[in-house]
Amino acid sequence: MLVVMDSNSSPDMVTHVCREIEKLGLAANPMRGTHTIAIEASGNATLVDPQCLLNHPGVKEIVQDAEPYRLVKRQSSPERTVVAVSGVEIGGKNLVVMAGPCAVESREQCFAIAERTAKAGAKIFRGGAFKPRTSPYSFQGLGENGLKVLAEVRERFGLAVVTEAMDTETLDLVADYTDIIQIGSRNMQNFSLLKRVGRKNNAVLLKRGMSATIEEFLLAAEYIMAEGNHRVILCERGVRTFAEHTRNTLDLSAVPAVKQLSHLPIIVDPSHGTGRNDLILPMSRAAVAAGADGLLIEVHHDPARALSDAAQSITPDAFDELMHQLRRIGHAVGRALP
Amino acid sequence: MLVVMDSNSSPDMVTHVCREIEKLGLAANPMRGTHTIAIEASGNATLVDPQCLLNHPGVKEIVQDAEPYRLVKRQSSPERTVVAVSGVEIGGKNLVVMAGPCAVESREQCFAIAERTAKAGAKIFRGGAFKPRTSPYSFQGLGENGLKVLAEVRERFGLAVVTEAMDTETLDLVADYTDIIQIGSRNMQNFSLLKRVGRKNNAVLLKRGMSATIEEFLLAAEYIMAEGNHRVILCERGVRTFAEHTRNTLDLSAVPAVKQLSHLPIIVDPSHGTGRNDLILPMSRAAVAAGADGLLIEVHHDPARALSDAAQSITPDAFDELMHQLRRIGHAVGRALP
Amino acid sequence: MLVVMDSNSSPDMVTHVCREIEKLGLAANPMRGTHTIAIEASGNATLVDPQCLLNHPGVKEIVQDAEPYRLVKRQSSPERTVVAVSGVEIGGKNLVVMAGPCAVESREQCFAIAERTAKAGAKIFRGGAFKPRTSPYSFQGLGENGLKVLAEVRERFGLAVVTEAMDTETLDLVADYTDIIQIGSRNMQNFSLLKRVGRKNNAVLLKRGMSATIEEFLLAAEYIMAEGNHRVILCERGVRTFAEHTRNTLDLSAVPAVKQLSHLPIIVDPSHGTGRNDLILPMSRAAVAAGADGLLIEVHHDPARALSDAAQSITPDAFDELMHQLRRIGHAVGRALP
Amino acid sequence: MLVVMDSNSSPDMVTHVCREIEKLGLAANPMRGTHTIAIEASGNATLVDPQCLLNHPGVKEIVQDAEPYRLVKRQSSPERTVVAVSGVEIGGKNLVVMAGPCAVESREQCFAIAERTAKAGAKIFRGGAFKPRTSPYSFQGLGENGLKVLAEVRERFGLAVVTEAMDTETLDLVADYTDIIQIGSRNMQNFSLLKRVGRKNNAVLLKRGMSATIEEFLLAAEYIMAEGNHRVILCERGVRTFAEHTRNTLDLSAVPAVKQLSHLPIIVDPSHGTGRNDLILPMSRAAVAAGADGLLIEVHHDPARALSDAAQSITPDAFDELMHQLRRIGHAVGRALP
Repeated sequence: MLVVMDSNSSPDMVTHVCREIEKLGLAANPMRGTHTIAIEASGNATLVDPQCLLNHPGVKEIVQDAEPYRLVKRQSSPERTVVAVSGVEIGGKNLVVMAGPCAVESREQCFAIAERTAKAGAKIFRGGAFKPRTSPYSFQGLGENGLKVLAEVRERFGLAVVTEAMDTETLDLVADYTDIIQIGSRNMQNFSLLKRVGRKNNAVLLKRGMSATIEEFLLAAEYIMAEGNHRVILCERGVRTFAEHTRNTLDLSAVPAVKQLSHLPIIVDPSHGTGRNDLILPMSRAAVAAGADGLLIEVHHDPARALSDAAQSITPDAFDELMHQLRRIGHAVGRALP
Repeated sequence: MLVVMDSNSSPDMVTHVCREIEKLGLAANPMRGTHTIAIEASGNATLVDPQCLLNHPGVKEIVQDAEPYRLVKRQSSPERTVVAVSGVEIGGKNLVVMAGPCAVESREQCFAIAERTAKAGAKIFRGGAFKPRTSPYSFQGLGENGLKVLAEVRERFGLAVVTEAMDTETLDLVADYTDIIQIGSRNMQNFSLLKRVGRKNNAVLLKRGMSATIEEFLLAAEYIMAEGNHRVILCERGVRTFAEHTRNTLDLSAVPAVKQLSHLPIIVDPSHGTGRNDLILPMSRAAVAAGADGLLIEVHHDPARALSDAAQSITPDAFDELMHQLRRIGHAVGRALP
Repeated sequence: MLVVMDSNSSPDMVTHVCREIEKLGLAANPMRGTHTIAIEASGNATLVDPQCLLNHPGVKEIVQDAEPYRLVKRQSSPERTVVAVSGVEIGGKNLVVMAGPCAVESREQCFAIAERTAKAGAKIFRGGAFKPRTSPYSFQGLGENGLKVLAEVRERFGLAVVTEAMDTETLDLVADYTDIIQIGSRNMQNFSLLKRVGRKNNAVLLKRGMSATIEEFLLAAEYIMAEGNHRVILCERGVRTFAEHTRNTLDLSAVPAVKQLSHLPIIVDPSHGTGRNDLILPMSRAAVAAGADGLLIEVHHDPARALSDAAQSITPDAFDELMHQLRRIGHAVGRALP
Repeated sequence: MLVVMDSNSSPDMVTHVCREIEKLGLAANPMRGTHTIAIEASGNATLVDPQCLLNHPGVKEIVQDAEPYRLVKRQSSPERTVVAVSGVEIGGKNLVVMAGPCAVESREQCFAIAERTAKAGAKIFRGGAFKPRTSPYSFQGLGENGLKVLAEVRERFGLAVVTEAMDTETLDLVADYTDIIQIGSRNMQNFSLLKRVGRKNNAVLLKRGMSATIEEFLLAAEYIMAEGNHRVILCERGVRTFAEHTRNTLDLSAVPAVKQLSHLPIIVDPSHGTGRNDLILPMSRAAVAAGADGLLIEVHHDPARALSDAAQSITPDAFDELMHQLRRIGHAVGRALP
C-alpha cells in the first residue's frame, strides 16, 4: 500500500501518518521525491480499513497493492477454469447454451420446451422453482414440485439442469435436484448464501448484481471459492441505468473485462439483459462475439401466456433460428456449438 | 387494467386480444373512441404477468389499475404509522436520531461512543455485530459477542438498539438482543429474509437497495407487512449513480415521495449516503428539512482507527454540533429533537 | 392521445378534464368501461405540453399517440437509408470502418496512420481538428491547420474524411474540408448546431449523448432531417453509468433497438465506448454481431505519446488484426468488409 | 504527478518509463521503497495526456498532482465569490430566490407571475425566450419578443432577470436584455459558448449537465473564468439515474461538495431537479439546509395550461407558502431571505 501525501504536507504530518500506519501493525517507509512524499506501508493488514488513513491531515490518496481477490484472479490458476457438468464443459472450447422457461409452470410446459431446446442443441435446461418476485402477490414458483419436474426433464431429455436457490433454508433441497445452483442478481451479495453454496458440490451460476461493479462481482465469486467450491460460472445479465429502451443495460464489456482479471468462465443472459424478446437474437450474437462462454436464454412455448417474464421469452422456433446463427458466429470466433 | 391498442390495429387483433384476456380469467370490455381502441380487463389476476399481453399484435401499452402494494399504501391506514421502541416513537412529532459505530469492535469502543451520543440526545444506538462485507477477507463482525455488547449498552445507557440481521440463520439470535432489526441494502430483495422478519415482533429498519426504485422499496416493505409485522421504518441511504464525489448519491427526494405514497416513517442515513464525514452535517440538515422522521449516523470516537467505514464516521464532538444544528432545523419544520 | 382517469374520479372531474382538453384546441371524447374512464383527445396540438393535463384532479396517466419523431421513423422511408460518401456506402450491404487518431497532431502522424488503416481496409479517416476538451488547459486541436492535413490525407490515400464541428462559427469551415461532419456527444442536444448542420450538404455523423435515451437520440437526428439534410449516420459510443471498469458503458442494445425504430444507419465507437484499448477488439466484434453498419476506431501509430485519448487508441498492428477478425464476423452475419 | 509501478515491474521497465516521461518534457525521479517503486514526474505538461503513460508495461496507476482547475478553486480566492446583480448579491449572507415561468409565453403571463413572485420576496425573474426542446416540433420560445417582455418585467417590477442563451448567434442579443445569462444543462460542455460567455460582462448561471461529475462541472466554470468573466453562479439541477419517481435525481450533496472545492456560489433548481410540483417545497427547504445560496423555481399562474414543463411548475399561492417556509429554514442556518 502506498500512502501519497499532499505536496504541501508538513514533516509533522508525515511523521504522524507513519506512526498511525505502525499502529495498524504495518511497517511505514517514507519515500521522498523532489515535491512528493509517499509512504510505503507493508505487512499483512486485512482487518484494517485502509480508508481510515484518509482521515489524517496531509493524506491525499491511497494506492492499494493489488486486487482484493485472490482465488478468482487470473494469475491464481495456471489455466482457465472449465466447469464440467454431466459431461458438458462450460468455459472450454465449445459454447454452451442453457435454455428454458423463466419459471417452471407445469410438467407439460417444461417437456414441451425441453423437447425443442434439446433438439436445437441446448445442453442445459433452465427453469425457476423458487422465484424471487418483486411483489409478494406475484407467482412465487412451484417449489419442490417444480424441482421434481426439472428432475424429470433431466431424465427424459438428457439435459443438465440449472435452477435458482433463493435462500439457505431451501439450498439443500435445491442442491439435491439440480446440477448447477443459480445465485440470482438480488442475492449476489447475500454473503451467507454465498458461503453456504461454497460448501456444496454443485456447480454455481453466479449472476451479476443489478448495480455491481466488476470488482464486487469477482469478490462475490471469491466468497464461494474461499469456502472450497471452485466450480463457479459467472453471468452478465444487465445493469441498471437511466436507459429506458431495455429493462436493463446489457454490459457486454464485462465479458472481456472479466476474462482479463479472472480464470473463471462467464456467460451472458440476454433475456434479463434486455427484457425484450426482439433483442435477444442480436444480443446473443454479440455476446458470443465478445467472447462469452455461453448463453442463458428464456424460451417459452407460449410466451403470451407465461406466468412471468412474458415480454422477454422467445418461442422454440425463434430459438432454432438463434442456435443456427450462433453456430455461424461461434465459428467466426473459433468456438463450436455442438 | 387497460390494454391500449395501436390506432391501426385491425378488428381481428382486437378480438384476439379480448380472447386472450379472457383466457387469463379476466373480463374483456372494448372501449372505442374515434381513433382509439382500449380494452378494459377486469377481475382478479395477480398470478398472471400482464406484460404477456404485449406479445400480441396490435397491443401498444398496458395501463395498470393501481400501485402493486396494498398494506404500505398511504390510503390503507387512517393515520401515519408511528413505530414505538422502548418508549421512543419513530414517525411521530419528534425527530429520532440513531447513532453509533459502523461495527461493534469492543465493549470499550461502544461505551465510549454511547456515552457521548446519549448525552447529545440520540435515543437509539446503532452498531453492526454481523457485517456484510464486500470482501470475504475483511472484518466480518464480532457476531454474538457483538450483540452482547449492544445489550450492555442498552442496559447501561438506556438506549434502544438497532443492529443488522444478515441472514435467516442468525435472525433469531439477533432478534433476541435487539429492539430494531436492520435489513441492509444488499438484502432489500432477500425475500426469504423479509418474510422471516415479517413474523418477528421486533421493529424493522429496512434500507433502500443500491439501485432500488421507490416501487421496489415499498414492495419490499410489503413483503414484511404481509407476514404480519407492521412496525416497519424505511431508510434512504443513497443509490448508485455515475457521480464520483460521494460514495452513493443520497436521493433525498425519496423522503417526500415515500410520504406521498405510504404511511410508513422514513429516516435517512447520510453516512452511507455520502461516504464522506465532511458532508454528513449539511446532508443531515437537508434530510430533516426534506421531511425525514430521523437520521442514522455513524459515530466513532477514533475514526482514524475504525475497522470499517472509517471515511464516513464522525467524531463525538462533530456529533454534538450536528445535534445542535438539527434542533434548529427541526424547529423550523415543526419537529422537536428532545 | 388517451387521458386515462383514476377509477374513483368523479363525473365532475371528467367533465373538467374534457373542457381543459378542448381549451387546448383538441376534441375530447370520453370512453367509458365498467370501472375505467379514458378520454380520447384528438387534433393537432404540437405546441401544447400534454403533461399539463396531469395537473388536473383525477388524471392518472397519459398515453401518447405515437413516437414524437416523424422523419427518422422506420415507417417514413420505404427502405433503409444508405448514406453514400465519396463512393463509400454506409448502411448498405458492406461494413464500413472509420479509423484514425483522436486528434490530428501533425501531417506526419496522420500520414503514418492513414497509410496503415487504408491498407488494412478502412475507407474513411477520422481525426479531430477542433477538440472538445473537458479542461480549457488541455490541447484544443490544430484548428484549420488540422483540417488541411485531413484534406491532404484524402488526396493522398483516397480516404473519405470525418471530423467534428464543435460550433456554428467553425461549421462552414469544417464543412468545406470534410466529407462527414461529426456532431459530438456533448453537442447531441446543441439544437442550434443541429439545425445548422441540417442545412449543409455533407453527411452527418451524430453521436449519442452521454446520458441520452434512444428517443432523445432519434429526436436529435430529427432536428437535422427537419432542416432538409437526410444523410444522417447515428453512432453509439457508450453511456454514463456507475460501472468503473470502462470509461463509458457501451450500450450495444441501442443498435438493434434503433434499427427497429428508424431507417437510419448506425455505427459503433468502441474506443470511447470502453476507453480501454484492450477491449476494442472484442467489442468491435460484438458491435458487428449486434448488427452495426460500421465502426469508428481510434488508431495511433504511437499511442504512448498521443496528445489525447491515449488509453483508448490501438496500434496499426492491432488494427490489422481487428480488420481480419471483423471480416470473419461480418461473414457470419452476411456483411462484407471489402 | 506520481507514476506508481507494479510491484513486480523490472528495472528495465522503470528505466523505460523514466525515459518516456522525459520525452514528454518532464523530469523523472524514481522513488524506491522496499516493495514499491514510484516515479515522480515534475514540470509543466498541460498539453500531454498523462494517461498515455498507462500504456507502458509495469505502470500501475497515475496519481495527479492536483485538481485540474485553477480559477474556480477555493484556494484561488481569499474569500467566497459574491455575484452582485442590480443590487442583489448571490453568494452573500442573504438567500436569493429566482422565480418565474419555464417559458415566456406572453406579457400578460409574465406580469401576472412577476407581480406575485416579487411581492413574495423573489428578487430575480426567470423565463425562457429561447427554449432548448427535445423535439423540433415543440414550442421553441418567443425569441427576441420574449426578451422584450423580460425587459418590461424588469422595468415594471424592479426585478433582475435571468434567461438562457442557447447559442453563440443569439448570445449578444440575450446579453443585451438580461442581467444573468443562463447556460443550460445541455450546453454545460458547449465549450465555444462557454468561452464566448466568458467574454461578456453579464453574470452567468451555469447549470450542471445531466451526467456531469463535479470535476467536469467546475471545469466548465473554469472555461468561463479563464476568458475573464469571474461572475459565475453554479446551479445543481438534478442528474440522470435509474430512479423513476422523479424526472431527475436532485443531487443535493453537490452543494456542500462544491463549497469545499470552490469559492463560487451555488444555487439549486428543484423544479427540473424533481420534475414534480409536489416535491418542490420539501426539496427547496432541503437545498437551503444543505447550504445552497439560493433557488431557481418555476412558477406559473396557470400550470394546467403551461406551454412547457407543466408538471413541475407551482402556483403563486404555493410559492407564497414556499417563501414563508424558506424564511424559517434560512433562519435556522443563519441565512436571511429578505
